Amino acid sequence: MAGPPPGSEFDLIARHFAPLARGEAGAFGLMDDAAVLAVPEGRALVVTTDTMVAGVHFLDGMPAEAVGARLLRVNLSDLASMGAVPAAYTVSLSFPRILATEERDRWAAGFARGLAADQDLFGLTLVGGDTVSAPGPVSLTLTALGWIEPGRALRRSGARAGDRVYVSGTIGDAVLGLEAERGGLGRLAPEHRAELVERFRRPTPRLQTGRRLVGVAHAAVDVSDGLIADLGHICSASGLTAGVVVPEVPLSDAARAALAADPALLGTVLTGGDDYELVFTTPPAAGDAVAAVAAETGVPLTAIGTVTEPAQGERGRVRVIGADGRDLDLAAEGYRHF
Amino acid sequence: MAGPPPGSEFDLIARHFAPLARGEAGAFGLMDDAAVLAVPEGRALVVTTDTMVAGVHFLDGMPAEAVGARLLRVNLSDLASMGAVPAAYTVSLSFPRILATEERDRWAAGFARGLAADQDLFGLTLVGGDTVSAPGPVSLTLTALGWIEPGRALRRSGARAGDRVYVSGTIGDAVLGLEAERGGLGRLAPEHRAELVERFRRPTPRLQTGRRLVGVAHAAVDVSDGLIADLGHICSASGLTAGVVVPEVPLSDAARAALAADPALLGTVLTGGDDYELVFTTPPAAGDAVAAVAAETGVPLTAIGTVTEPAQGERGRVRVIGADGRDLDLAAEGYRHF
Repeated sequence: MAGPPPGSEFDLIARHFAPLARGEAGAFGLMDDAAVLAVPEGRALVVTTDTMVAGVHFLDGMPAEAVGARLLRVNLSDLASMGAVPAAYTVSLSFPRILATEERDRWAAGFARGLAADQDLFGLTLVGGDTVSAPGPVSLTLTALGWIEPGRALRRSGARAGDRVYVSGTIGDAVLGLEAERGGLGRLAPEHRAELVERFRRPTPRLQTGRRLVGVAHAAVDVSDGLIADLGHICSASGLTAGVVVPEVPLSDAARAALAADPALLGTVLTGGDDYELVFTTPPAAGDAVAAVAAETGVPLTAIGTVTEPAQGERGRVRVIGADGRDLDLAAEGYRHF
Repeated sequence: MAGPPPGSEFDLIARHFAPLARGEAGAFGLMDDAAVLAVPEGRALVVTTDTMVAGVHFLDGMPAEAVGARLLRVNLSDLASMGAVPAAYTVSLSFPRILATEERDRWAAGFARGLAADQDLFGLTLVGGDTVSAPGPVSLTLTALGWIEPGRALRRSGARAGDRVYVSGTIGDAVLGLEAERGGLGRLAPEHRAELVERFRRPTPRLQTGRRLVGVAHAAVDVSDGLIADLGHICSASGLTAGVVVPEVPLSDAARAALAADPALLGTVLTGGDDYELVFTTPPAAGDAVAAVAAETGVPLTAIGTVTEPAQGERGRVRVIGADGRDLDLAAEGYRHF
C-alpha cells in the first residue's frame, strides 16, 4: 500500500512521532484509539498539563528542537515539584494552516528531535497525541504522567511556621536569558549571554532532587511564575508568610555579571519566572538531610529564608529582605520587571 | 486578600474550572502543580488526547456549552472503543487574545457548564489544565484518563478472518447534522434537522457498550473518520479486508429521510465521520453474546458485514456491497463526500 500523503496528520505521526513511542508497547505505535499503560504496583498516578503558544510563551524564531525540549521540561518540572517519577506523555500540535507542507514537516522533525533527546534523558515515552492544522500560531499542549507512592506527593500546602525555605540551583537565569534572546543585556560577555539563553530554552527539571525530597520537605513548588510569586503560592496554600534574604539567593556567574552591569535587574531576577528550580520548605532540623540530597544529586540546595505565622492580613505575603536586614519594596525602589 | 483579577487565568480557573474538580480530592482544587490519582487495584491506565479548534473542528458560532460536551464526548469515545472505564481528564483552553474579558468569561462559563453536565453523566472529574491567551481562534485540548484490566483492552489489530462486523447505534447522523448546521439539507423536516444537529453536537460515547464488549469483540474502533475509513483501520491493523453490506447499515429515521430526498448522500453517510459509534468484529459464534450486550445497554448492535483474508494488495481495503450484491464504487458513482 502507498503511505499516507506527505505532510498529512498520519504522515507526520508515522514518520516523526511514532518512533518516540517505540519504548512503550502499550502506545501501540500511536496507531490505536488510546494507549494502555501498566501501573507499577502500589503507585498513584500524577498528571500535569501545559500549553505553549509561539509568540506568547516562546519567541517565534525559537528552533523547533528547543521548543520540544522546553515544553517537555516545563511539564517534567511539575512532576519534579510533586516528587513524582515520570513515565509517559501525550502531545498535541496545532500547526498554522498557512505553513507549507515542507515547512511543517521540517518543524515537526525538529520538534520530535527535541522530544527524543529529552525523553531518553528523563526516562519517559510518548504514548499519544493529536496533530491539527488551524489558523493562528504554532500551539502545543503536553500532558505528563508519572507515579508516586500514595499520600507522599509534595504539596504547596504542607509548609509549617518555622520551616526553612530552600531553593535548588540558581535563580533569575531564565528571565535574563529571555531578555538576552530578545536582544537585551548588550553589555554582557557572549559566553554569559549564551549560558542565560540556554537556561531559558532548556530548563532542567529537578526530578532527582524532587524525588529525594519526598519525606524531607514539608512543601514544594517549581519556580515558573518567579521566585517570590511561587514561594507566595506555598505561603497562601499553607496559611503562612515568608521572608527571603536577598544576599542568600543563589545566582549564577552570568546573572551576577548582569546585575553588576545593571543593579536595577534585581527585581527581574527575583520576580522573573521560568527558572524551573524547586522552592521548598523543611523543618529547621532537616539541614543535614537537605545537604545529603544536594550531595547525592549534585544540585546545590541553598537556604534563602524562613516561613512564619502571618500577622493580620499578611497571609501569603513574601517579604524581600536586603543585605541591611530591612525590607525591600521591589516595586517602589525602581527595580525593573519584564 | 483580594481575589485574582477578573478574566485572568487564575480567576477563570477559580470560578469556572475548580468547581469541576471538587469530586477528586487529588485534584487539589486545581491549585497545585499536578494532580495525584489513586489507581484502582489491578488496573492499567488508558490515555487519549484530542484537540479541537473553532472554525476547523466545530463551527465558530457553536455554543460554548456544546463545545465542552462535544470535546469531552469525543475523547470518551476513544476510551469506549478500548473498553475502558473513564476516571479523569485535563483540559487546556487557548482564548483569542482579542476576546474582551466579559466574552472570555461568558465563554468559559458556558464551556464549563457543558463539561459539568457530562462529567456527572459519564462519571469522571476534571483534575488539571491550563488557560492561555493567544492569537488565533479558540483552541482546546483534552486528555482523558481511564482504567482497564491489564491485557484486556479492545484493539484495532485483533480482528480475525471470518469475524462478523458490527456497528452500534446509527451511522451518518453526525455528518448530516454538520451539513444541516451549515444551512444544508433544506428539504428536511425541522425535527429531523434538529435531531441530526444534536447528534453532531453531542455524540454519545458508547462507554457501556465498549465495556461489555471486552472479552466478546476481537477488535474495535470508534467512528470518527467515517464508517468505511475506520473499519479500514481495523482491517489494516489486522492484515485483513472487509465487506460492508449497505442495506444492513443502521440508519436513523432522520438520515433515511435525508437519503430519500437526496440519494447521492449515501456516500456522505458511509464515509462521513463524527458518529462516535463503535465498529467492532466478533467471531461468528458470538451472536448471542452481542445480542445480550445490546439488550443490557439498550444500544442496538447491528451486523453489517464480514472480515476476510485479503487477496493480493487488498489488505486494509473495505468493499461496499449494494443491495444487488455487487460492489459499489462510491467515488465513481457520483456520491457526494463533504
